[in-house]
Amino acid sequence: MTRVQELYPDNKIVLREVGLRDGLQLVKTFPSTAAKQRWIRDEYAAGVRHFEVGSFLPAKTFPQFADVRGIIATVASLPGAYGIALTLNERGVNEALASGVAEVATVVSATEEHSQANANRSRESAIANVKRLCELRDASTHKPVVNSAISMALGCSIVGPVDPTEVLRLTEKLFEAGVDMVAIADTVGYAGPKQVGELVAGAVKIAGAKPICIHLHDTRGMGIANASAALDAGARVLDGSLGGLGGCPFAPGATGNVVFEDLAFLCESKGFETGVDFEKLIAVRGILKSEMPGEALYGGLARAGLPRGRAAKAA
Amino acid sequence: MTRVQELYPDNKIVLREVGLRDGLQLVKTFPSTAAKQRWIRDEYAAGVRHFEVGSFLPAKTFPQFADVRGIIATVASLPGAYGIALTLNERGVNEALASGVAEVATVVSATEEHSQANANRSRESAIANVKRLCELRDASTHKPVVNSAISMALGCSIVGPVDPTEVLRLTEKLFEAGVDMVAIADTVGYAGPKQVGELVAGAVKIAGAKPICIHLHDTRGMGIANASAALDAGARVLDGSLGGLGGCPFAPGATGNVVFEDLAFLCESKGFETGVDFEKLIAVRGILKSEMPGEALYGGLARAGLPRGRAAKAA
Repeated sequence: MTRVQELYPDNKIVLREVGLRDGLQLVKTFPSTAAKQRWIRDEYAAGVRHFEVGSFLPAKTFPQFADVRGIIATVASLPGAYGIALTLNERGVNEALASGVAEVATVVSATEEHSQANANRSRESAIANVKRLCELRDASTHKPVVNSAISMALGCSIVGPVDPTEVLRLTEKLFEAGVDMVAIADTVGYAGPKQVGELVAGAVKIAGAKPICIHLHDTRGMGIANASAALDAGARVLDGSLGGLGGCPFAPGATGNVVFEDLAFLCESKGFETGVDFEKLIAVRGILKSEMPGEALYGGLARAGLPRGRAAKAA
Repeated sequence: MTRVQELYPDNKIVLREVGLRDGLQLVKTFPSTAAKQRWIRDEYAAGVRHFEVGSFLPAKTFPQFADVRGIIATVASLPGAYGIALTLNERGVNEALASGVAEVATVVSATEEHSQANANRSRESAIANVKRLCELRDASTHKPVVNSAISMALGCSIVGPVDPTEVLRLTEKLFEAGVDMVAIADTVGYAGPKQVGELVAGAVKIAGAKPICIHLHDTRGMGIANASAALDAGARVLDGSLGGLGGCPFAPGATGNVVFEDLAFLCESKGFETGVDFEKLIAVRGILKSEMPGEALYGGLARAGLPRGRAAKAA
C-alpha cells in the first residue's frame, strides 16, 4: 500500500478539518497551542482523522502557525490520524519534510493574473516548484503525500470567470510533476454546483486512481450544494472547517470554509459513511468560541441538532 | 391557457417569495401593512412575481395576517404578479375565493401522527377537504390555482423518517382530488439532497404536465443543496424567503425557509433564468431589518455580493 492509499483509501470518502490552517488565516485572535491540541484531540474523539495543521511560513508574518511542529506532533501521536502542512517555498518544503508531517500541501493559481499578483511568479514557475517538491519527497525518508491545490479554480478574484480547460490542463501538469493528489479550490466561493460537478468530473478522469480533493468556501451559500455535486462527480476527499471558520482575504465579510459538521451530515445523508459522532463534533465548537470569541461560527446542524430518529453516532 | 399554465409556464422555473406568510409565522414583531407593501413592490421591481401573502386564519390568533386582503390587492395591482394565500378550513377557503387571490394553498400532513397532532384530523379527512376546496374552485368565478402542500414530506417532527411511497401515494390522491399542483415540503429541514431528488423525481412523474413545487427549510444547512437536487429532478417551482426569514415551531432556534436570494443565485448558476436583479433584491432586506430588528437574516450572497464578472441583473 502506498502512502497516499494509506491516507486516502479508495473505498471511502475522507473529510479533512482545515480550520487549524485555512480557518486561522484571518482570525483576529489566535488559539493557544494547548487549545489547538484540545481541538484536535476532541475532533479525533469525534471521528475526524485528517487535519490541516498549519503552514511553514515565516512566524513573524504568520504567528498563528509558529507552533506548527508541535501541532504536527500532536496529530502524529493519535493512531490513524494524519497531519497536513502547507508550504509555499523550498525552505518551507524542507522544514515540512524534516517535520515528518504525513502530507505536504502546496498551491498553484488557476490564472496567470492571480499567480503573478499573489505569488509573484508564473504558473509555470509554480509548477516547476511543485516538481522540485516531489523530487525532495522522493529523496526523503518518510515520503509524505504531496497535494497541490489549484486555487481560484472555479472563479478568480482578479479576472472573474476561469476557463475549466485551463484548470484541467494544470491538473494534468501537476500529476505529471509527481503530485499524489490535486485539490480543486473554490477559493472565493464563486461557483455553483453545476460548475463544480463538471470540473470535478473532468479532474477525476485525469486523476485515475489518485484522489481529487474539493476545497470549498461557503462565501455565497453554495458550499454544501457544491460539495454534493462534487461527491456526485467522484470527489472522495473534501475539506471543511468546524463552524465554517475562516474568512477570505479577497471577500471581506464572507464566510469561510464549508461547515465541517454540515458537510459530514450531507455525506451521511447521501449514504457515505464518515465515522463522525455528531454530538461530540458539535461540542468541539465550544473550544473555538472560547478561544476566538470575535469569530462568527456558522452551521445548521449545530443550531438545530440531528433530525428525530437519527442516531448521533453515524458510523 | 389554463390558470395554472398562466402562473407556472412549463418552460421556465418560478421562485416564490413565501416570507410574507411562512416567514412571518413565528417572528416576534410584525411588519406594518405599509412595510409589507413596500416589500412586495420592491421585490417586484427586482423581478419577483409570486408572493405567498398570508393566510385566512382567525386574526386574533394570527394578527400578522389580519391585513391579508389588502396585501392580496397590492399584489394584484402589479402586472404579472400573483398572490398565494393559505387556507386550512372551509371558512378560510370561502374567504380566499371571495378575495380573488390568484392561488389558494392548503396543507396535508405526510404522516397520520402529524395530521392528528397538528390538525386534529386524519389525512383522509384532510384530502376530503382538499377535494371540497377544488369543487368550490370549480364553482368560483375566477377559478384560482389550487396548490396542496404535503408537510413533513421528507421527515416528520413526530415520527422521524417518512416513507417516500406514502408521500407519492398522497401526491396521487391530491391530484385525483383536483389540485393543480402539489408542493413537497421539508417542513423541519430533515432531508439531504439524495432524498429530495428521489422524492421529487417520483412526484414529477405522477404530476405529468402539472407543476411540482419544492418547499425547503434550511434548518440543517442543506437548503440550497436540496434545491439543487430538486431542480435536477424536475421541480420547476421553488419556495424561498428573503434572508431566510421564518423559524420553525418544531425546531427552536432553527433557520427558516431557504434563502431566496441564494436560491436565485443557485438557479442562475445552473442556467435557469430567474429574471432577478440581485442588487435590487438584496436591497429589500433593509425593509425586513428595520421592521423586524429582532430577526436574524441569513444568506451568503447578501454578505459577499456577486462574483466578479457577474452582472447584477441576471436575465
